Amino acid sequence: MKAIAVRDGAGEPELIELPQPEPAAGEALIRTLRVGVDGTDHEVIAGSHGGSPAGDDYLVLGHEAVGVVEDPNDTDLEAGQLVVPTVRRPPNGDNPYFERGEPDMAPDGQYHERGIVGDHGFMAEYFTSPESTLVTLSPDLAEYGFLVEPISITEKAVEHAEASRSAFEWTPESALVLGNGSLGLLTLAMFEHRFDRTYCLGRRERPDPTIDIIESLESTYINSNETPVPEIPDAYEPPDLIYEATGYAKHPFEAVEALAPNGVLALLGVPGDWEFEFNGGKFHREVVLHNKALVGSVNSNIRHFEAAVESLGALSEAFLSSLVTGIYDLEEFEQAFVDDDTTIKNAVQFSSYEERR
Amino acid sequence: MKAIAVRDGAGEPELIELPQPEPAAGEALIRTLRVGVDGTDHEVIAGSHGGSPAGDDYLVLGHEAVGVVEDPNDTDLEAGQLVVPTVRRPPNGDNPYFERGEPDMAPDGQYHERGIVGDHGFMAEYFTSPESTLVTLSPDLAEYGFLVEPISITEKAVEHAEASRSAFEWTPESALVLGNGSLGLLTLAMFEHRFDRTYCLGRRERPDPTIDIIESLESTYINSNETPVPEIPDAYEPPDLIYEATGYAKHPFEAVEALAPNGVLALLGVPGDWEFEFNGGKFHREVVLHNKALVGSVNSNIRHFEAAVESLGALSEAFLSSLVTGIYDLEEFEQAFVDDDTTIKNAVQFSSYEERR
Repeated sequence: MKAIAVRDGAGEPELIELPQPEPAAGEALIRTLRVGVDGTDHEVIAGSHGGSPAGDDYLVLGHEAVGVVEDPNDTDLEAGQLVVPTVRRPPNGDNPYFERGEPDMAPDGQYHERGIVGDHGFMAEYFTSPESTLVTLSPDLAEYGFLVEPISITEKAVEHAEASRSAFEWTPESALVLGNGSLGLLTLAMFEHRFDRTYCLGRRERPDPTIDIIESLESTYINSNETPVPEIPDAYEPPDLIYEATGYAKHPFEAVEALAPNGVLALLGVPGDWEFEFNGGKFHREVVLHNKALVGSVNSNIRHFEAAVESLGALSEAFLSSLVTGIYDLEEFEQAFVDDDTTIKNAVQFSSYEERR
Repeated sequence: MKAIAVRDGAGEPELIELPQPEPAAGEALIRTLRVGVDGTDHEVIAGSHGGSPAGDDYLVLGHEAVGVVEDPNDTDLEAGQLVVPTVRRPPNGDNPYFERGEPDMAPDGQYHERGIVGDHGFMAEYFTSPESTLVTLSPDLAEYGFLVEPISITEKAVEHAEASRSAFEWTPESALVLGNGSLGLLTLAMFEHRFDRTYCLGRRERPDPTIDIIESLESTYINSNETPVPEIPDAYEPPDLIYEATGYAKHPFEAVEALAPNGVLALLGVPGDWEFEFNGGKFHREVVLHNKALVGSVNSNIRHFEAAVESLGALSEAFLSSLVTGIYDLEEFEQAFVDDDTTIKNAVQFSSYEERR
């Protein structure tokens, strides 16, 4: 079968030929429909994040997949069911984080991530996965099912952010999303009916397709070149929740100060080292005197995938079709990895839902 | 009656004469037993924090009080009941934070703090307070009842820190308290049976009475001159919870990195401005990749006072008597405000529980 992989050090993806996998006990064989591309894939390809499985000098890419059960094997799944796989797998048999369904909370060394680190991903015509790692979804979600994984990332981050505010009566009205990439826009769409007012910060100038999407969500676009984060409280309002999806290392510090009293900042970006000067005393004081919180979040577990299936179902076709700027067949897979100002979210299509062998 | 107040700009407390207060409807008249002194009092005296009530050029000090109901007035309290008052009061009639019992979450301008900002404190022979602001305690807690307020500060901070970890199965084993002042030591004592291993960071050299207390709590003293926060994970272990009670503006950043994966930092200090260079990218990345949280906490509400009464009852007489280094009568009140290396926690005694007029 065909797969899209990156060889160690190659710096670009290539099409390779692999044997079709055999499901082990407890696993189903899945025919891949679509696999999304995100910033993590670009980091993996560049070699700045992740790594190949032990013993292999290549990594099959892809962690945002949707597929169809081809062979249920010994599982309770049924052939033809639409499924999305979670990403983390135990590296050496189970460990407590996996046993209790919280692999997203496992520390370094206690997880692999399919398509990212230690385990091959889903960018292949078929993949196998344990039943416990697969969420089912209704056939009408086949087209955009590869968005369940990124949506699950936000489900987790927001769950943790809300938990941090659960010791008192928190009634948030406004949310600010930092970043107008695909994750930022998905999050903004999820927030449309959760908050009275939403804002999205980016650095693009008009005309721009992401700004059009932001405005179609009845959200306010904030151009960071005109209104940087520290000026947002005066220019708009201090937000109750800020969701960071930029990886810009100054954002946590600016955002905490911009929050409304009792607000929370969810951090999701993964920046490199960056030393800078900053008023740590003011940050510290502000967090304390206004009961603020800051919560980091990485990965997601099957509960978040299940919530994400619900959230995906609530997003409009108009939004989804404007977010997904490219679906590319295997023959033109390189196109899916192009990242320019017209690209918002791309995916590779391995087969269509209606196909049968 | 006699009261201890600071005149605006005086920089030191003095004994003044005031009329005995009359309880308004819904208020009881309380005969003051003891009122503790803490760092906030020193800041208020120095003029760097808080302020006198509108129209007055002096502030009666004291926010850590225990007293006896002298006149229940129209409340359901009974004469002779031991009570501790909360600290925040609504500035102009009620507001939603007070109405729902969460004045500790009120933003600037929506609260006064008795003995700190906008309202006179409890360092007087009598004070009045609404029934809804008074928690009752059993007579055996009369001696140390002035510790209920500082303990309530930790109840709230730990409640918020634990809430931030409530979206997953968090099983903390170790806690580190930054600061060996009275609040740090009280917190360490509260942690003795909540965590398997506790640590307390200070900058004192042996012999020192706070180090003796730390070791009597079966905790490990960490001298920050020998082992600064960034070295604690290697020298001891990365703690699951860190409680900051130093007001040292670099501690939040060092402590987040020192935390164990999925750990939480509770911030309580209130530093002044301080600009310094720091690796914000590493901080940001560490928070995200290890699901860490940081929670600021100020003040406390009546639920936390009620929990604090329970916690106080569980602390040993040996610990409490070593923590409280001075109880001073009104005639020698200046002694209670001395803050040197032999002072841990002082209080002023206005009357004794057994006294009757």
